[in-house]
Amino acid sequence: MIKHVLANSFILCASLAAAVPSLAQAQSTEPRVYNSNITLVEVRAAQKAWGDALVKISDDFQSGGLAKAKTTANAVLDAAYGYNLGPVLFKPTLTVAPQTFRTTKEGALAYFVGGDTNFPNDSGFALKGWKKVDIVNAAVHINGDVASTMGKVVLTDAKGQSTTVDKTWTFKKDDSGVVRIVLHHSSLPYTPN
Amino acid sequence: MIKHVLANSFILCASLAAAVPSLAQAQSTEPRVYNSNITLVEVRAAQKAWGDALVKISDDFQSGGLAKAKTTANAVLDAAYGYNLGPVLFKPTLTVAPQTFRTTKEGALAYFVGGDTNFPNDSGFALKGWKKVDIVNAAVHINGDVASTMGKVVLTDAKGQSTTVDKTWTFKKDDSGVVRIVLHHSSLPYTPN
Amino acid sequence: MIKHVLANSFILCASLAAAVPSLAQAQSTEPRVYNSNITLVEVRAAQKAWGDALVKISDDFQSGGLAKAKTTANAVLDAAYGYNLGPVLFKPTLTVAPQTFRTTKEGALAYFVGGDTNFPNDSGFALKGWKKVDIVNAAVHINGDVASTMGKVVLTDAKGQSTTVDKTWTFKKDDSGVVRIVLHHSSLPYTPN
Amino acid sequence: MIKHVLANSFILCASLAAAVPSLAQAQSTEPRVYNSNITLVEVRAAQKAWGDALVKISDDFQSGGLAKAKTTANAVLDAAYGYNLGPVLFKPTLTVAPQTFRTTKEGALAYFVGGDTNFPNDSGFALKGWKKVDIVNAAVHINGDVASTMGKVVLTDAKGQSTTVDKTWTFKKDDSGVVRIVLHHSSLPYTPN
Repeated sequence: MIKHVLANSFILCASLAAAVPSLAQAQSTEPRVYNSNITLVEVRAAQKAWGDALVKISDDFQSGGLAKAKTTANAVLDAAYGYNLGPVLFKPTLTVAPQTFRTTKEGALAYFVGGDTNFPNDSGFALKGWKKVDIVNAAVHINGDVASTMGKVVLTDAKGQSTTVDKTWTFKKDDSGVVRIVLHHSSLPYTPN
Repeated sequence: MIKHVLANSFILCASLAAAVPSLAQAQSTEPRVYNSNITLVEVRAAQKAWGDALVKISDDFQSGGLAKAKTTANAVLDAAYGYNLGPVLFKPTLTVAPQTFRTTKEGALAYFVGGDTNFPNDSGFALKGWKKVDIVNAAVHINGDVASTMGKVVLTDAKGQSTTVDKTWTFKKDDSGVVRIVLHHSSLPYTPN
Repeated sequence: MIKHVLANSFILCASLAAAVPSLAQAQSTEPRVYNSNITLVEVRAAQKAWGDALVKISDDFQSGGLAKAKTTANAVLDAAYGYNLGPVLFKPTLTVAPQTFRTTKEGALAYFVGGDTNFPNDSGFALKGWKKVDIVNAAVHINGDVASTMGKVVLTDAKGQSTTVDKTWTFKKDDSGVVRIVLHHSSLPYTPN
Repeated sequence: MIKHVLANSFILCASLAAAVPSLAQAQSTEPRVYNSNITLVEVRAAQKAWGDALVKISDDFQSGGLAKAKTTANAVLDAAYGYNLGPVLFKPTLTVAPQTFRTTKEGALAYFVGGDTNFPNDSGFALKGWKKVDIVNAAVHINGDVASTMGKVVLTDAKGQSTTVDKTWTFKKDDSGVVRIVLHHSSLPYTPN
């Protein structure tokens, strides 16, 4: 039932954890159960998968250059974002008007790996040598098959330098049980003058 | 936040079990969580509460007559059905056209305890001396804050005689965390000629 | 995105009416919109499609025998029921214990066209020469991507004889925008002794 | 059924527009309909109400000082935010760690009007003389009773100076039909060095 097969097994595994709908075959008096609801456990797995994927793109850029990084980023967008469902509400950390919002997959791919003349300000956020992603959720809102999180995300690069962002995600569990990002708002913390 | 206080403590307790939303106060790195989703455990508790309530109405009819039974039935409808939210899709076991469906609380109350000249065919289903209710679910469908069940329900009266019905329920967990019946289709099993 | 292509164009058309998700491309200041919610219009279209499909199976049985009817019924189950999503809560009008509930596609197909030794009591409900289906909803409950209806359905056969059933459906709009039956409780009206 | 009555009639009216659930009384063959889904029209009304409320707090501060502004802000939070339902995922534009996120009503009130020693960095965002709020949505995601928007919001003050923010909101329509903000992420646009 998983539509997008990734070359990178670790991403696949992260997705698989959330991929199987809750179906229990009948036995004696136990009912068969269909459950489309998303759980906190699934949300946390999807958050971790996002961090792992970002590091993976950075690693692939280092080992295989832009072509390899772009292939991985494309697979990540197919597997972990909801562009197949419709527009994604994506405000990346470093975008500027008039291309602030990346509601299409093309815009998201350009943001992560750059090299797209249609998005001339994008230098490739995922190519910055990220090695570690830590996520601290302040609050979670679960409503049916969608769940939103808000919190701090700390990205650490190969030099040990870290960047903290304020991040909001909304995940939607699709019909196949895959948890997808349908909303993503990332911003640098406000700095008082 | 529970709007309907029942005189009958056992019904109140049954409702309370499902009444508290999943809110967890923040602690160190643990996020605060809002979760409106209904769970299989809550569904089963609501089913059991329905059975207990039916028996309670029967018992109250025996001990206190129609007035007492009607008071209890009224409280059950307020606490366990969703007439406060809007029309309820209710097809009781024994109703006939043109009053087959009881989308209003008045129609449901008439079905359970009778004595309403606006529903002349109702003799009071809950007054039939029910002592025990057994529920065997065939399947359950959980979708956000609503969940549907389908299965057999066996009602046993004081004489030990049982009636089996095919029953479908849909429950909705409201903003206060109370699980309410918003759909109820009950029918006698088909008897081939 | 429609996974199940039917040979019968009229069924396909009925499904197509509900098949396209609400996506509107951005224009100047108009936002792109994703909307997974089901509407009353979609529910009514799905109800009509169910009636049309029942008549189609009957017609195909008459013109092409059991093989043709079975092919059509199989396509209807793939296109209009949610067995691909998980168990369906299906209590057909004329089934008896211990096979009252048909939570699998095999059980549903047996009910509609018979001829399955695993379901020896099924004679094929859809083969009874149905020519017309009229649906009168008493109430509708819409909640996200699922909607339930309850009401009277009148089936009329080639001889002009009609059968009325009390029917409850729950429809779920899937990720592709296809509206599927995930719950179906049908029963003959209660007849007082 | 509206729990929070505001002194300011214009806010009340804005809320009322979204407050009545979709209930239609049965007539002849028209079914009674319960519909908990949120619509794009309701979302836009709630966005406009938020802008109107911000201007109202600013105006009340000018005409009646902090006490009047605080009373209005308190009423706005009760009427238009979902703190009564649970934690709200609120990242205001100008907050800093360790008080970046305002998951409680107290934290939100402090942000809007300041004067709370528990939130010493808050100077009162709503007191800055705002006169006009323009909202341009990039995309909207509707899922059951919740809907998210992402876009630009332009705030203009009494001097005609404007501030643009990138803003994400999630609204939830509650059981009474009131549309409430349950998620709010606001950030200043990224400025490249």
